Amino acid sequence: MTVSQFHFLNRVVFGPGAAETLGEELTAAGIRRPLLVSDEGLVAAGLVARLRGLMPAPAAEFLAVPANPTEAAVAQARALCLEAGCDGIVALGGGSPIDFAKAVALSATHPGPLGDYAAIRGGAARIGPCLPVIVLPTTAGTGSEVGRGALITLETGEKLVIASPHLLPVVALCDPGLTLGLPPGLTAATGVDALSHCIEAWLSPRWNPPVDAIVLDGLRRGWAALPRAVAAPDDIDARAGMMMVSIEGGLGFQKGLGAVHALSHPLGALPGLSLHHGSCNAAVMPAVLRFNRPAAQARLEALEEALALPAGTTLADALEGLNARLGLPCSLREMGVRAEMIPGLTVGALADHSRPTNPRPLGEAEITALYTELVA
Amino acid sequence: MTVSQFHFLNRVVFGPGAAETLGEELTAAGIRRPLLVSDEGLVAAGLVARLRGLMPAPAAEFLAVPANPTEAAVAQARALCLEAGCDGIVALGGGSPIDFAKAVALSATHPGPLGDYAAIRGGAARIGPCLPVIVLPTTAGTGSEVGRGALITLETGEKLVIASPHLLPVVALCDPGLTLGLPPGLTAATGVDALSHCIEAWLSPRWNPPVDAIVLDGLRRGWAALPRAVAAPDDIDARAGMMMVSIEGGLGFQKGLGAVHALSHPLGALPGLSLHHGSCNAAVMPAVLRFNRPAAQARLEALEEALALPAGTTLADALEGLNARLGLPCSLREMGVRAEMIPGLTVGALADHSRPTNPRPLGEAEITALYTELVA
Repeated sequence: MTVSQFHFLNRVVFGPGAAETLGEELTAAGIRRPLLVSDEGLVAAGLVARLRGLMPAPAAEFLAVPANPTEAAVAQARALCLEAGCDGIVALGGGSPIDFAKAVALSATHPGPLGDYAAIRGGAARIGPCLPVIVLPTTAGTGSEVGRGALITLETGEKLVIASPHLLPVVALCDPGLTLGLPPGLTAATGVDALSHCIEAWLSPRWNPPVDAIVLDGLRRGWAALPRAVAAPDDIDARAGMMMVSIEGGLGFQKGLGAVHALSHPLGALPGLSLHHGSCNAAVMPAVLRFNRPAAQARLEALEEALALPAGTTLADALEGLNARLGLPCSLREMGVRAEMIPGLTVGALADHSRPTNPRPLGEAEITALYTELVA
Repeated sequence: MTVSQFHFLNRVVFGPGAAETLGEELTAAGIRRPLLVSDEGLVAAGLVARLRGLMPAPAAEFLAVPANPTEAAVAQARALCLEAGCDGIVALGGGSPIDFAKAVALSATHPGPLGDYAAIRGGAARIGPCLPVIVLPTTAGTGSEVGRGALITLETGEKLVIASPHLLPVVALCDPGLTLGLPPGLTAATGVDALSHCIEAWLSPRWNPPVDAIVLDGLRRGWAALPRAVAAPDDIDARAGMMMVSIEGGLGFQKGLGAVHALSHPLGALPGLSLHHGSCNAAVMPAVLRFNRPAAQARLEALEEALALPAGTTLADALEGLNARLGLPCSLREMGVRAEMIPGLTVGALADHSRPTNPRPLGEAEITALYTELVA
């Protein structure tokens, strides 16, 4: 056995009503002039208005976070933030507003383009204290509420992660009530994202028993809760279950993810398509798990046993069935991805930070073969 | 369901050779003038000398940490620390040197007696940044390496916990090689301490699924590893297993412990006897679990199932058998505790910070009855 490193993460306040502690959490964090960050869907859904009722008036607001956050939008929010003298950020939303808030917290306190801070370029060492961020997730999937990273599409077109303990939210207010209005399609796509975090963290070759225990619990919990949350959007227990799976999957990030995310991130950066990260994961996961099986037989069998899958049914089979039942895509073709995009996607996947922790070595040929299978 | 709070903890470097990273960890933590803290047993075992070879010369050393750390010893080490201008602490040892180092880190940076900072008196709010502490556990049990708390026997005779995120070690170097020399008796007693953290955290009524998953894994892991580590002290895999159980139990502290620890802490403070914390836990645990059963039937059955205990064997039965096999006490009588001590012990247990999270209400009458049974 070799030397392993791990640590756990930020404070979480969990449960119906957790959002109502926002005012006291702002005070506790010393934030007096918050920048409120969210997206247009949440404005339309009335959640932004609801949040304004739970906090002192924000010093500034940026309510146009793109579905896949871009460096250009970060620059706009940064300018707002500096102009208003904001001393912290409140992010309401799914993974995009949360990641976006982290990137603004970084760029408001650090010089130069975001690409300088990309994890893959050793950027973590250049990240010092940032503006404090308080997050209120409105989806259950991203895990970003307990994560140190943020995925941003740069001006260069690359979708890269920036990551540092300084980007951890100071507190995550995980209120399942905020997810009650999430439509079935987004509930399914974000929920499968959470499952994919649990599965990929479990399969990562890094040694971390506490994370293994957490993500195994998360996968079991999500397997039961996700179909319920999709079928009955008002089931607060199912919503709370999925919100916990999101956290458990997010606690798994420190083991590293794998090929599902390595293939999925460049898909999210495809110009024009604006593909949803969770749907991409759902579409690629069965093929990736079949590809990984020779290198991860025992680990996959443990998951199949934990979920009590019928004999002869692999996790890949079961996830295909789940996609079909939840209305999620089973191929990239049906999402509009075409063969001519594969060379560019392959370059992105090869450079992705999740690739090294895939349980089976994943080179250019393997990536191209997987994409080819998925667009056929 | 109600609102729950949780967070996880500090960085861990785990595995054979982890101790060898001490030099670089001191640099990373900005510690240039460390105070080295340990105990006489570890000096005699040669571990202190070995540690000196892994770090720049300490600015000061305090190598006389008592088995149950006292406020008086903390005051001596604090004086040494301030006189030598130390800017951080390295703790080598079991729970006592680690807790001791935390208390010195606090008292070197905060005025007044330690009792002012006791958790039970709302002291956490008065604890700000302390000297950074790097810990190297030489036993596998305490969990203090990943914990925010320290148990100190005050001048008043009370054994109280001080706790704050500021007392978390900046990094725990968990090197199972450091535990190879631990004799079977101490291996057993400290190991059952780790098991007791897993069991009591699991039984705590606070809702925290990630901790539940971790401590369940810890109990299973320890149930297999502890008899091996006691029987074959050089079995590095068994030692690593127990070191992980110690961490997993320590990550459980945030759920709170219960009656085992509420009864055990005052025993450790008995003047003259100097009882080992792990042995106390071993002795009281079967009786406590039988007492708790009516309030925790399902939770106990889940543990019995996880350990695949034979039908009709309770966890309490199995722990009695384990005590017998490992040479641990099964009663307080054989440890020298007498009936006339019970009134004083009961006062301590009633005031203990672990009492409120016992799954069954635990008042004066119940505490007295349990002690009485155990000294009979």
